[in-house]
Amino acid sequence: MKKTLNEIAALLNGCVSGDGEVVIERILGIDEAGPGDLTFVANPKYQKRMETTGAAAIMVAPGTACAGKTLLIVADPYVSLSRLLALFYPEDEETAGISKDAIVEAGADVSPEAVVYPGVHVCRGARVGKQAVLYPGVFIGRDAAVGEASILHPGVTVYRRCLIGRRVVLHAGVVVGSDGFGFALPGRENRKVPQVGYVQIDDDVEIGANTTIDRGTLGRTWIQRGVKIDNLVQIAHNVVIGEYSIIVAQVGISGSAQLGKGVVIGGQAGVVGHIRIGDGVMAAARAGVHKDVAPGRIIAGSPHMSHLEWLKMEACLPKLPEMRGALAALQGRIAALEGEKKKERL
Amino acid sequence: MKKTLNEIAALLNGCVSGDGEVVIERILGIDEAGPGDLTFVANPKYQKRMETTGAAAIMVAPGTACAGKTLLIVADPYVSLSRLLALFYPEDEETAGISKDAIVEAGADVSPEAVVYPGVHVCRGARVGKQAVLYPGVFIGRDAAVGEASILHPGVTVYRRCLIGRRVVLHAGVVVGSDGFGFALPGRENRKVPQVGYVQIDDDVEIGANTTIDRGTLGRTWIQRGVKIDNLVQIAHNVVIGEYSIIVAQVGISGSAQLGKGVVIGGQAGVVGHIRIGDGVMAAARAGVHKDVAPGRIIAGSPHMSHLEWLKMEACLPKLPEMRGALAALQGRIAALEGEKKKERL
Amino acid sequence: MKKTLNEIAALLNGCVSGDGEVVIERILGIDEAGPGDLTFVANPKYQKRMETTGAAAIMVAPGTACAGKTLLIVADPYVSLSRLLALFYPEDEETAGISKDAIVEAGADVSPEAVVYPGVHVCRGARVGKQAVLYPGVFIGRDAAVGEASILHPGVTVYRRCLIGRRVVLHAGVVVGSDGFGFALPGRENRKVPQVGYVQIDDDVEIGANTTIDRGTLGRTWIQRGVKIDNLVQIAHNVVIGEYSIIVAQVGISGSAQLGKGVVIGGQAGVVGHIRIGDGVMAAARAGVHKDVAPGRIIAGSPHMSHLEWLKMEACLPKLPEMRGALAALQGRIAALEGEKKKERL
Repeated sequence: MKKTLNEIAALLNGCVSGDGEVVIERILGIDEAGPGDLTFVANPKYQKRMETTGAAAIMVAPGTACAGKTLLIVADPYVSLSRLLALFYPEDEETAGISKDAIVEAGADVSPEAVVYPGVHVCRGARVGKQAVLYPGVFIGRDAAVGEASILHPGVTVYRRCLIGRRVVLHAGVVVGSDGFGFALPGRENRKVPQVGYVQIDDDVEIGANTTIDRGTLGRTWIQRGVKIDNLVQIAHNVVIGEYSIIVAQVGISGSAQLGKGVVIGGQAGVVGHIRIGDGVMAAARAGVHKDVAPGRIIAGSPHMSHLEWLKMEACLPKLPEMRGALAALQGRIAALEGEKKKERL
Repeated sequence: MKKTLNEIAALLNGCVSGDGEVVIERILGIDEAGPGDLTFVANPKYQKRMETTGAAAIMVAPGTACAGKTLLIVADPYVSLSRLLALFYPEDEETAGISKDAIVEAGADVSPEAVVYPGVHVCRGARVGKQAVLYPGVFIGRDAAVGEASILHPGVTVYRRCLIGRRVVLHAGVVVGSDGFGFALPGRENRKVPQVGYVQIDDDVEIGANTTIDRGTLGRTWIQRGVKIDNLVQIAHNVVIGEYSIIVAQVGISGSAQLGKGVVIGGQAGVVGHIRIGDGVMAAARAGVHKDVAPGRIIAGSPHMSHLEWLKMEACLPKLPEMRGALAALQGRIAALEGEKKKERL
Repeated sequence: MKKTLNEIAALLNGCVSGDGEVVIERILGIDEAGPGDLTFVANPKYQKRMETTGAAAIMVAPGTACAGKTLLIVADPYVSLSRLLALFYPEDEETAGISKDAIVEAGADVSPEAVVYPGVHVCRGARVGKQAVLYPGVFIGRDAAVGEASILHPGVTVYRRCLIGRRVVLHAGVVVGSDGFGFALPGRENRKVPQVGYVQIDDDVEIGANTTIDRGTLGRTWIQRGVKIDNLVQIAHNVVIGEYSIIVAQVGISGSAQLGKGVVIGGQAGVVGHIRIGDGVMAAARAGVHKDVAPGRIIAGSPHMSHLEWLKMEACLPKLPEMRGALAALQGRIAALEGEKKKERL
């Protein structure tokens, strides 16, 4: 792929500062880019490296300047990067067809326009839509469904009766529909509560490698349209995650928690069970969300508080030993004052 | 399945308040249930929804009332739910037999009464008991054993010489017997210490999706009878987990830690290596357990303290900035008092 | 394997205190060892058990004494253990060859001296070196490479174009090269940023079960020579981990973070994106590393501080409620002093 910077600018509704006729062949990171390469700055932390990059041009947000460098100015460099990468690095085409080395049980309904690799197993009653891609080692349980154009990477397991929408991407090792963790008389008899529900994943969801999503105890665990979940996340039974929410790596969400639309949960955070998190809430990495959160709040800490409160609190933490010392000193000084006062009275 | 509420009450040793002749066809959650459905309240948080549920009847604990609703009163609704779900939603029968598309190496001993799906691999010297179910992608290493009626979901790996008992359930992606993390001269040479031990999992254990259990360096890592482990848990080499303990999702337990019987460890908690946790200890979610814990204690926080201490401490945390301000103010006021005193003395 | 203690001592450059002619047949843990067994003490915590062990001899560091016991004194017992276990418990030999039940696509280049089990899938353009071992369920994507003598345990997925060096060990369920978590307009449109980079894993790396390593957005995610990563670790896109670093279980490292050589990150710690951690840094378990760290520092806490500061801070935490009470008492006492002063003035 070769395009002049002017052509790229036209495509992205951007404008060029410098030589618009330079030919771009690749998109690369700011440290790796050389002649013929376009790079970008989306995180202000990298602005200082603009001076030293060997790139032919740099894609930046409005208001970013760098003497002597050719700039492509766009409204949102990260959004533009998304479009450019899809253009410069198109995905491989897969050839439709069901491998003779795949196992499709009698009573399964797999579209002949799907791509089914060797080593896939589709159980009876399951449906797989056209253009879906099932890589080796994918398991589709009984009466489960995978919608059109969804991609299931190697080793994905979808348990019985779970429903995967259209254009869903499940990365390697994802488990959908394992039993929720329900045991009566915990610590004594650990009597299993059968998990008879299912998981519903709506269209355009993407889920990261080795993430696990438990089926509902009764009814469904529900991942709504456009949600993006990172690697090694745990989603427990009967959780609902609202449209376009973002769940970063290693988060754990406990049973029956309900997240609204556009919620963002930072890495390694935890959410306790049976609570509601309102639309648009942002929880910082490692937050411990222990009770309901009103829409739009920005929270941090464990147990969570407002992000602002948390910043103040965190700033004090390393001062604790000093505060403790100061307190003891004050106690001494007050005792001295009180002693003098007592003597005066005598 | 159809049963009258009176029939169900007889089965559960419960009693009915309201119309015992109503016919129950399904068990559903309190928000989803309608006519013909039985629902339940096990968590007091949901009691207020009793008024709005469309369920034909509600299973509750003694002392719960709701005007105008038919109630089924049982000693422990969650235990009763466990029994009812097994009755209303029996598990699918699997047809015994070893698929011709499974690989059973010469010298392996797989019961003809086991269920072995296509894509299973059983190495030489391994044994698989009757009624065991091995789903596609299961790997059983050399000289390993899987007991009667155990269920290994898709993609489970059991490394060489590990022992799985009877009626054990391993969810998709579980790894049993990977090498423990032992390297001499860490950060310099990282010289591997060969991990020559094994994992022993006793009867009636259930382990959640993508959980990992390392083999002993020497000797065994031991998960005792009736233990239940959730998803994405890490169990290091030579750990011992006592009978009927409960380990919630994303917990990490470091090498050679020993947990007693009936221990409950909350989600995302961590346990350091080489410590002993006594019988019946309960550690809150996210606890960091850093030293031995006496039997029966309830702990929280990281590093852990008693749950009560932790509650008090946590309540103070958001007050820290205010405390710091108050301390500074006091210092000023005392200095003022001291100043006056000094002037008096002159 | 049978050797006298004197023969073992000669091998390890150690010396014997006691009967050097005792014959050693096995290496076992201090509680399990009996006659004919050698055990060891590497962690001082176990020294007291030297008195009660039934072992024929105990391998210890210089300066360790135990009346009446035969000791093998070596410079570093854990390093010596590493050598002895490799000697006493040699690994099984695997027979070279590509199983007829493996799928090797046309255009893949797999050494006939590799060991390729049934159920392996190697895509076109991929290369697999001699003596490499690919267990069942391993997937090697297009144009990916696996170097000589590397071992990929069951269910490992290597996405397209990722590069695995020589003598690398990937435990069961490891995912190399899943898409990085890059979405523009997060929480609103979640527009995917195509992840067109790759993962490079250098020689002599070992990675624990179910760990996930995302490909670079552009360019590479890079795990350098000799690095050891434990189970269930998350490594995000474009991370660099320097030679011989150690990453303990359940750690999460965010995008574009760069770790120097010989860095040690304790279990369940988190590292934020776009920061640099200098050579030889040690971060305690559960540390939250939020900004650059100078070489050689020892850090702890979340957000991180020096380990020493953290120890002091942590010691104060349980005292917080007491401090708060003391502060309130002081406020009362000062108000009383100020009141008297005011009266005097009248």
